[in-house]
Amino acid sequence: MSSFGTLFRVTTYGESHCKSVGCIVDGCPPGLELSEADIQPQLSRRRPGQSKLSTPRNEKDQVHIQSGTENGLSLGSPIGMLVQNEDHRPHDYSETDLYPRPSHADWTYIQKYGTKSTSGGGRSSARETIGRVAAGAIAEKILAKANGVEIVAFVSSIGEIAMDRNPLDPKFQKILSSITREEVDAVGPVRCPDETVREEMVKVIEKYRDAKDSIGGVVTCVIRNCPIGLGEPCFDKLEATLAHAMLSLPATKGFEFGSGFFGTTIPGSKHNDPFIFDESNKRLRTKTNNSGGVQGGISNGENIYFSVAFKSAATISQEQTTVTYEGKDGVLAARGRHDPSVTPRAVPIVESMAALVLVDQLLIQKSREYGINICKN
Amino acid sequence: MSSFGTLFRVTTYGESHCKSVGCIVDGCPPGLELSEADIQPQLSRRRPGQSKLSTPRNEKDQVHIQSGTENGLSLGSPIGMLVQNEDHRPHDYSETDLYPRPSHADWTYIQKYGTKSTSGGGRSSARETIGRVAAGAIAEKILAKANGVEIVAFVSSIGEIAMDRNPLDPKFQKILSSITREEVDAVGPVRCPDETVREEMVKVIEKYRDAKDSIGGVVTCVIRNCPIGLGEPCFDKLEATLAHAMLSLPATKGFEFGSGFFGTTIPGSKHNDPFIFDESNKRLRTKTNNSGGVQGGISNGENIYFSVAFKSAATISQEQTTVTYEGKDGVLAARGRHDPSVTPRAVPIVESMAALVLVDQLLIQKSREYGINICKN
Amino acid sequence: MSSFGTLFRVTTYGESHCKSVGCIVDGCPPGLELSEADIQPQLSRRRPGQSKLSTPRNEKDQVHIQSGTENGLSLGSPIGMLVQNEDHRPHDYSETDLYPRPSHADWTYIQKYGTKSTSGGGRSSARETIGRVAAGAIAEKILAKANGVEIVAFVSSIGEIAMDRNPLDPKFQKILSSITREEVDAVGPVRCPDETVREEMVKVIEKYRDAKDSIGGVVTCVIRNCPIGLGEPCFDKLEATLAHAMLSLPATKGFEFGSGFFGTTIPGSKHNDPFIFDESNKRLRTKTNNSGGVQGGISNGENIYFSVAFKSAATISQEQTTVTYEGKDGVLAARGRHDPSVTPRAVPIVESMAALVLVDQLLIQKSREYGINICKN
Amino acid sequence: MSSFGTLFRVTTYGESHCKSVGCIVDGCPPGLELSEADIQPQLSRRRPGQSKLSTPRNEKDQVHIQSGTENGLSLGSPIGMLVQNEDHRPHDYSETDLYPRPSHADWTYIQKYGTKSTSGGGRSSARETIGRVAAGAIAEKILAKANGVEIVAFVSSIGEIAMDRNPLDPKFQKILSSITREEVDAVGPVRCPDETVREEMVKVIEKYRDAKDSIGGVVTCVIRNCPIGLGEPCFDKLEATLAHAMLSLPATKGFEFGSGFFGTTIPGSKHNDPFIFDESNKRLRTKTNNSGGVQGGISNGENIYFSVAFKSAATISQEQTTVTYEGKDGVLAARGRHDPSVTPRAVPIVESMAALVLVDQLLIQKSREYGINICKN
Repeated sequence: MSSFGTLFRVTTYGESHCKSVGCIVDGCPPGLELSEADIQPQLSRRRPGQSKLSTPRNEKDQVHIQSGTENGLSLGSPIGMLVQNEDHRPHDYSETDLYPRPSHADWTYIQKYGTKSTSGGGRSSARETIGRVAAGAIAEKILAKANGVEIVAFVSSIGEIAMDRNPLDPKFQKILSSITREEVDAVGPVRCPDETVREEMVKVIEKYRDAKDSIGGVVTCVIRNCPIGLGEPCFDKLEATLAHAMLSLPATKGFEFGSGFFGTTIPGSKHNDPFIFDESNKRLRTKTNNSGGVQGGISNGENIYFSVAFKSAATISQEQTTVTYEGKDGVLAARGRHDPSVTPRAVPIVESMAALVLVDQLLIQKSREYGINICKN
Repeated sequence: MSSFGTLFRVTTYGESHCKSVGCIVDGCPPGLELSEADIQPQLSRRRPGQSKLSTPRNEKDQVHIQSGTENGLSLGSPIGMLVQNEDHRPHDYSETDLYPRPSHADWTYIQKYGTKSTSGGGRSSARETIGRVAAGAIAEKILAKANGVEIVAFVSSIGEIAMDRNPLDPKFQKILSSITREEVDAVGPVRCPDETVREEMVKVIEKYRDAKDSIGGVVTCVIRNCPIGLGEPCFDKLEATLAHAMLSLPATKGFEFGSGFFGTTIPGSKHNDPFIFDESNKRLRTKTNNSGGVQGGISNGENIYFSVAFKSAATISQEQTTVTYEGKDGVLAARGRHDPSVTPRAVPIVESMAALVLVDQLLIQKSREYGINICKN
Repeated sequence: MSSFGTLFRVTTYGESHCKSVGCIVDGCPPGLELSEADIQPQLSRRRPGQSKLSTPRNEKDQVHIQSGTENGLSLGSPIGMLVQNEDHRPHDYSETDLYPRPSHADWTYIQKYGTKSTSGGGRSSARETIGRVAAGAIAEKILAKANGVEIVAFVSSIGEIAMDRNPLDPKFQKILSSITREEVDAVGPVRCPDETVREEMVKVIEKYRDAKDSIGGVVTCVIRNCPIGLGEPCFDKLEATLAHAMLSLPATKGFEFGSGFFGTTIPGSKHNDPFIFDESNKRLRTKTNNSGGVQGGISNGENIYFSVAFKSAATISQEQTTVTYEGKDGVLAARGRHDPSVTPRAVPIVESMAALVLVDQLLIQKSREYGINICKN
Repeated sequence: MSSFGTLFRVTTYGESHCKSVGCIVDGCPPGLELSEADIQPQLSRRRPGQSKLSTPRNEKDQVHIQSGTENGLSLGSPIGMLVQNEDHRPHDYSETDLYPRPSHADWTYIQKYGTKSTSGGGRSSARETIGRVAAGAIAEKILAKANGVEIVAFVSSIGEIAMDRNPLDPKFQKILSSITREEVDAVGPVRCPDETVREEMVKVIEKYRDAKDSIGGVVTCVIRNCPIGLGEPCFDKLEATLAHAMLSLPATKGFEFGSGFFGTTIPGSKHNDPFIFDESNKRLRTKTNNSGGVQGGISNGENIYFSVAFKSAATISQEQTTVTYEGKDGVLAARGRHDPSVTPRAVPIVESMAALVLVDQLLIQKSREYGINICKN
């Protein structure tokens, strides 16, 4: 279904070629200062056409709040939001009338729905993420007010060019602790904060662009100042809902948090995060953070960090040998120009989904804390 | 919360030191032949104490069906199941009265719940997975009847010793296409089907056992004969719900499917799975399977395969420098013997969670197919 | 929250004075012929200003489909729909800046949300039902295709003037078996099919209109050709979800189905519906229908009928002695003209909610039937 | 499905003839003093065999907590509870092998599930309510701590013998404001607090008992000290979830709250509840309470009261002319003795469901209040 969340729930609609795409955000607390100006920045960050590295389609993507606010404040009622679809260009996709695009959703959609939309993959369009980003912007504003939560994502690898993400590496931990969105955007379209690999990343993208090919990458995201105690112990562990959120994004292939896959090679004696006493906060904290800010599914107050793998974009301009819907051999070449790497554009989308997960878990936990207080008396 | 699934839903209860652990399985279709004998095998496979490599605690874990069946058939009503807790040994954990165990959930649970259970991490206990495995066994039986679905998990790495999981490697794809549970279990406690690395894995585990340390690993799982069309396009993509399911397991650090993180380095022109016409089934299929059996969140009929990272077990017998709950420096050493590698035991649990995801998505899709049929007329 | 349903789910947004009101319909099967023309009729039936008996506010309420259809067919993706808010007239409510309107939601909304909207009751506005009716129209179309389901509601009482709703009365059962929407609308704005009480109802409404007062009533609804087997046995019995749906409508005070409250006075020997063999359908059916088409929470193929009580409208033009928000004694009189009886306008809304309940239960049951079939083999 | 609630959720299992019936209560806050002694009293109140008016089946119904508590306190983890099934007597129902019992769920269950359980209606058994009552007892304890919430239900009519439930009647309002469970139980098995009708009720029940017949009745319930602001504005209005809860109970035919169906005959000028200033609480309240403590779906601090119609029990000892499953004419007579009126036994079940609704809405609203607080800053 097209809903995500329990107490803070977003429901999205829209595909590439319909009138508008949008969402309903249910459960936003009343009294929040809120206008389009709070939402537009992240929508603009996800927009294509922002640099020579990405596709020139310039969708203006202006969001229009339909309901749920008055005099600049949220009412507590559902917030309807929409963005008009302007730049359809359905002709560009005309060859997909004959061919299911390899590694796109064209064929599986027909199998699932028994019908074919002109947009091919229908809801698997990247435009579907507009509703998520609009909702995420609201979630972020609440989280910032709640605890000064900061969520910053960045590109950590493009193809084989990768930052060192070893959790025991002080440089990596320092980036996690200090990186800002402004810094991420300032370093150019590749959105990688590590100057030692950034230029190589740009070259790799340009290489695949020139070859009419595409290349994947990894987005790493850090959440700072997350309240302690978020995440439900069993099925809805914090990392499980984050994984759910991230793998629901188009083109993703993997998720890892804390030490991740690499962490399986670190013996327990080194992987365990010993406790120390934090004098400034007068509470325990951990000396290392291989756990990635989550233990037993519950946030422990350390930085939460995770990485999401994005595959090489399926739409490429070079010819591909494949078959038609009817099974006849043929060659498909997508017309127009296409993003050689969607990874940098995924940065604000990853942040938005992280915010949606956190705000929902926050509201659930605050309800529990109320329960704890009354049971004590 | 402690429920998972929409139309086929399991709700679990229980922690290490209570009377019993168990679950309620809601939404099992009526008329399924079902008895404890269908459920016990997977419970026994997840049981510790099965080899010299794993912990000697011998929990018998006999499941008792409470409701929902009659004369050996399911009734369609909720199936209550429970397993008595027998082997508590709460004394072994006595030092945890003073110390929150590093990288356990002891401390985060207290932060979240404001209360401390004798079992420390409460629901983060591995015993919580009993209910999942019992439910998964039912799910698997339905899937087998529905489409001959086969789900087989195995260990693909222990520490740095890893099978080649390159999706373009024919040997790896062959294992995915043919491996059986019998074969997985037959190769000894390490449950790795690749004879070239298996012995090394055993040695690694023994090394860490002797060092009173632990080591992590990766479990890879393949789903064969999955019906085409499962998975919901937006938030509940098949890979997203699988990721949610897997990351909800204790000690997990990552999830990847198909080409995974490695796939981000393969350019689109090679990563794309071209379509070919399958004469035997008179339908399209893909020539390669970097997609891992899922495109646009929807199963495409190819093998679904994914990997789950399990961290090195947090409980180790060697001394750890840490602090007490009150923040005093000290040294903690877990008494008793502990599994140096929980990864092999995770094999049936991964299979169970995969089955729970699939059966729920299957039932949802079958409802849609009904809708498609009536709309056509 | 603002969502209703499991597999066929509507999420609504909007209040009286925002840009638009609307909904997202998730789970509509693909391939359904669908355009605004399918939705507008029920929206127009719920519109005020259709007769001298009701309020002259003429809201045009044209629905605009935003997504989820293409070439006149549903795609299977979420259907976004909206209706612009045109006729705000916020001034008419200006006195509500001082006074919480008695038996309105003004005061409870402030208590709940800590904030005040200019529309007073916010989401308790009747305009919120537009999204429900739009969604219900789609649901009805599916139900008609599925089994020729017919849903017809009508006014069965206005104030003390009431049709005989004794379940054992053949005249009442005949109306249930044959009444059509065309007949309901043809008999004038009071929408009561019983000519023996209709004229008196009109007089009663006129009397209260002239007295600047209002009067309540009862809407009765029948569902014909409901498939056998809908409704979940425990918490989601068919009557329970119908009750939930109906009591979620503004101004409702009660729900009863089948013999209802009156049925509590009929002894079991007469209340029980004996089975007979239905030669035409070659199956059992019941001789009487005190059960109202539902037994044990599950539809039995007989007519499902139920009644919903609507209170006298809280907005009246006469003066009311009450207090201001600050607690000062005063007199409130609503300006403008107001519906003396909202009951007739509730007719299409009741039908819509009934359709939403049924289509969701239908899709759930069809999934189960699939499960039954595979378990048998 | 067999779950109810969002943040405080009960999932039940069990039918008449299985090993045990029980439930899992998820979302109970940690730190609540809790033992079987808190749960048993309501279970005992729902038990049959407590008086000469009701059936002699003596089920001991001792509850056993399986998990979720330690040292007399809740842990915050799911609370598993079960009651053994002891007194099966399947033989008493043997004739139901031939006949679907009229107005029972036997036939609809077979239609729905395609299979027949020896208990006939399966989950429609009254024993299914044990899990609800056990969960409700926990909910009540939380509500009492939260705000001193009191929930008291009583019988307000048996057949045609009825208390005056006119909302404008001071005597009725006085009963609502003061009645206690002790008083309800003290007045004998009929559980009606109105001495003017109580004896007649007993006679009516005896009359139908002697005639091997049954008779229905109405249970009225009051909730006192409900916090202001509970209930979600749109689909999950407080009255809607209460209606859902009540109509999910076996044998119910209707639900009304506040002025109910009778309220449709009171003109708006009298039905509206004017506000007054409450000096003691320094806040507004309403002078009358036709609204039944809920306005716009949200609790307003006044007594919440509602009534639930229970049909005459379907199981009667006298012969009934009906047909067999195969459609052959015949006569069915239930053996053994049966309750002539189940209405008095429903009293604790109604209270339990009310508590489950309230505690869930309370936890949801407290989360919102947290959100309001942070948005203000």
